[in-house]
Amino acid sequence: MPHTLGQLAARFGLELRGDPDATVDAVATLQHARAGTLSFLANPRYRRHLEGTEATAVVLDPASAADCRTNALVARNPYAAYARIAALLHPRAEPSPGVHPSAVVDPGAQLAPSAHVGAHVFVGPGCRLGERAVVGPGCMLEADVHVGDDTRLVARVSLYRGVRLGRRCLVHAGAVLGADGFGIAQDRDGWVKVPQVGGVQVGDDVEIGANTTIDRGAIEDTVLEDGVKLDNQIQVGHNVRIGAHTAIAGCVGISGSTTIGKRCLIAGAVGIVGHLEIADDVVVTGLSMVSSSITKPGMYSSGLPAIETGDWRRAVARLHRLDELFDRVKRLEKGAAASGGDDGVPGDVRAGSA
Amino acid sequence: MPHTLGQLAARFGLELRGDPDATVDAVATLQHARAGTLSFLANPRYRRHLEGTEATAVVLDPASAADCRTNALVARNPYAAYARIAALLHPRAEPSPGVHPSAVVDPGAQLAPSAHVGAHVFVGPGCRLGERAVVGPGCMLEADVHVGDDTRLVARVSLYRGVRLGRRCLVHAGAVLGADGFGIAQDRDGWVKVPQVGGVQVGDDVEIGANTTIDRGAIEDTVLEDGVKLDNQIQVGHNVRIGAHTAIAGCVGISGSTTIGKRCLIAGAVGIVGHLEIADDVVVTGLSMVSSSITKPGMYSSGLPAIETGDWRRAVARLHRLDELFDRVKRLEKGAAASGGDDGVPGDVRAGSA
Amino acid sequence: MPHTLGQLAARFGLELRGDPDATVDAVATLQHARAGTLSFLANPRYRRHLEGTEATAVVLDPASAADCRTNALVARNPYAAYARIAALLHPRAEPSPGVHPSAVVDPGAQLAPSAHVGAHVFVGPGCRLGERAVVGPGCMLEADVHVGDDTRLVARVSLYRGVRLGRRCLVHAGAVLGADGFGIAQDRDGWVKVPQVGGVQVGDDVEIGANTTIDRGAIEDTVLEDGVKLDNQIQVGHNVRIGAHTAIAGCVGISGSTTIGKRCLIAGAVGIVGHLEIADDVVVTGLSMVSSSITKPGMYSSGLPAIETGDWRRAVARLHRLDELFDRVKRLEKGAAASGGDDGVPGDVRAGSA
Repeated sequence: MPHTLGQLAARFGLELRGDPDATVDAVATLQHARAGTLSFLANPRYRRHLEGTEATAVVLDPASAADCRTNALVARNPYAAYARIAALLHPRAEPSPGVHPSAVVDPGAQLAPSAHVGAHVFVGPGCRLGERAVVGPGCMLEADVHVGDDTRLVARVSLYRGVRLGRRCLVHAGAVLGADGFGIAQDRDGWVKVPQVGGVQVGDDVEIGANTTIDRGAIEDTVLEDGVKLDNQIQVGHNVRIGAHTAIAGCVGISGSTTIGKRCLIAGAVGIVGHLEIADDVVVTGLSMVSSSITKPGMYSSGLPAIETGDWRRAVARLHRLDELFDRVKRLEKGAAASGGDDGVPGDVRAGSA
Repeated sequence: MPHTLGQLAARFGLELRGDPDATVDAVATLQHARAGTLSFLANPRYRRHLEGTEATAVVLDPASAADCRTNALVARNPYAAYARIAALLHPRAEPSPGVHPSAVVDPGAQLAPSAHVGAHVFVGPGCRLGERAVVGPGCMLEADVHVGDDTRLVARVSLYRGVRLGRRCLVHAGAVLGADGFGIAQDRDGWVKVPQVGGVQVGDDVEIGANTTIDRGAIEDTVLEDGVKLDNQIQVGHNVRIGAHTAIAGCVGISGSTTIGKRCLIAGAVGIVGHLEIADDVVVTGLSMVSSSITKPGMYSSGLPAIETGDWRRAVARLHRLDELFDRVKRLEKGAAASGGDDGVPGDVRAGSA
Repeated sequence: MPHTLGQLAARFGLELRGDPDATVDAVATLQHARAGTLSFLANPRYRRHLEGTEATAVVLDPASAADCRTNALVARNPYAAYARIAALLHPRAEPSPGVHPSAVVDPGAQLAPSAHVGAHVFVGPGCRLGERAVVGPGCMLEADVHVGDDTRLVARVSLYRGVRLGRRCLVHAGAVLGADGFGIAQDRDGWVKVPQVGGVQVGDDVEIGANTTIDRGAIEDTVLEDGVKLDNQIQVGHNVRIGAHTAIAGCVGISGSTTIGKRCLIAGAVGIVGHLEIADDVVVTGLSMVSSSITKPGMYSSGLPAIETGDWRRAVARLHRLDELFDRVKRLEKGAAASGGDDGVPGDVRAGSA
């Protein structure tokens, strides 16, 4: 349904520079926009496409608005403003209430009348689905699972016994919540399984990506606080706690019993070892390994950028010989000191006192 | 069904050295072959098993053929020739056309008469299945999904709304195509979800591994061109484009809006950050992080080989003290220059001008 | 059901220091225990919670027992002893024998009378389920799959044609066993698929985590020996062999044709390249890349710990300039030798002979 720019400006508290009666009915990129669409500029990388865009309107910040030749919706945070308008222009299809005839729902489950249960779903005993909850095709809810109001499991999601999901969550296909944590005790003859009797608690407004796995706690619960956003293919170990509004990109692995603070940003393929404490407002860049607790907000890294393989091989060979190089430099320093050519302070001592 | 070596040589354009009437009906490794089987030699690592093999025939290259004591099928590219013969000897079981009674197919879906829909499948409105398309048990096709002729979804594959798959594709169990990209806009109170309204377009002859995830585009489409081969557990972010015939090994993560060229080889567990351009014919070795665009064909690396932990800890400690070591060497150079023991050109300058 | 400490001590061969008639009916952490629960102390990190615990009993080792103010169950291996008691206190719910009416079971499949087949399961022709085998909701068993006695597939597990699972295995949701290995042969016009005609053999007492993938062999089988424990999101390539009682943490990737020994410990997110041999009793720490065979037991590493990003960037820049630094040190050594300030032995030679 088309919306006028005047309506959008009023509804989202934006400044409109242009025609309030112009309408948009879809979003588009600056580069490929056509008349009747709305675009946005948030990443300076795409500024070069602003001048030539055929979008009917562009959401952008005050500094960029001067360069905009079409209608401008000026926002302090253009990406967030764009996101809200896009949700209005492209509403999610809401499945109708009811239970698909092919679904298997235990008579002991409690479903809100407005809940939707799709094809080939299994809902075990003791489960509860909130108002407007959506359980898409192929989901398996083992037993005693609670799904909050307006939460949506898209398809083929597995929720083990006792998992709790808050309101307005979105869980993508293939996600598994509540599988056993990796608890094994070494014994003479191999491994003894440690029963995993804790649960999984997920707050409100949490998004969980496709094929992401969140293990149940060993004794107490694994916890995702409100507003946590997880991308695809993430592994969250048992008894991990992730603080409110922390966002984690794809392929991250978090080992057991680690606590991550609020509003953290963890980039893709980071590995975090177990039993750590990560402070609030920590950023970890891609492919880093967090192997000790982080007590201060800030940005942390250990990902290595790829270079040409020949250069890289030489660098690695050198890295493995650093011990030797430090020794050689120390020897040179001693020689220089003996011959009066240096200040006589051994480098190691200096570094140690830094 | 047995084939004579004469038939195989003629059919695949190979030179036969040996008995054209000998027959083979299965493949085997050189080491464990028995009479009646066909083996191959492509990796020099396994050449030691050639002499003693009991295979009835071996596919190998001209240089190795002289060492072959059994029938030889000589090929310039023995691995590719072997692959074609193996496909003939071990044909895939083709399920019969029709819809399993337990499947749920929306009346608005269009299925070619020769398509197969397995048990517990869900096919939503607007979907189209091409000739001989196979949708294996437990697959979920949300809506408006197109599956091309001869494409096979093995089992438990999720295709979200609007996903397009070309012809002769193979998608393994647990793969998810079209889940929302990780688009979130930071706002004062947390995150605003950015609607993901683009799609996923997959060309012809694409293979997608088990539990691999390919996100839908934010506005425009995520694209896999013809002949792309993806292994298991790969994450492809929104608006990524992967060029024709590029092959990507398991556990790779590709962040949003990155373009990968044609005929690239990406080894296992590589991470590629977002918004990059990777040229055609680029090779990236295992566990590397690609954090800037690559404009030249070639091989790139940053994976670190494991060594004994004690040695590694010392190397890491040294790595963290490299700044200091550079300073110490600079100081020594100054001392040497002052005492006439060096050529007086500071190393930093020299390196900078290289 | 409550158990007395006397019963537990007798059953598990533990020394009881305290009241044999006290009862416990659940496990708890030291910190949050209440009366009637049993806790344990195995990780010294949590010793600080021992003094104040309200647990009725604690399992711990002799050295810690003196500090225990409540009933102590003393064990040489307290974690393993705890694991066994916890399994007694928290028995797994065992589904009743029989086939759910919504399951689709091929008439040619053989099911033990005590086996359980859940909702929306597909069991293809030639499959065999052992006594008390459990196939949870949404599992897909293609054909000729054997599941041993007491083995449990929790939910949404895919087993391709011919997969063999031993006894007492546990396979978590979303796992895929037997998908095609990543076998492709490069040809002029792209890739030729190499048929994957081997199988997957899994021994007894193996646990496989959620969304883990284990590829079928190219010609012979991929093998997991008895007692192997795999966490979530692991990728095991074709023709890999994993030795008995080896444990592998989440997000590990193992490339094709690699053999891993017995009793190895592979930490999270490790990558292991193909065609290697890893000895028995090898430990690899997190995020390491194993790129050559390991012939000696021991601990191996290449994971880099994250540090502040600014420091890290400098370290990486320095790493890329190590070649230059080695050259500069060599030049200084030559100068020192010429001026008599060093012992005249070039460092490179010395290192080379070490």
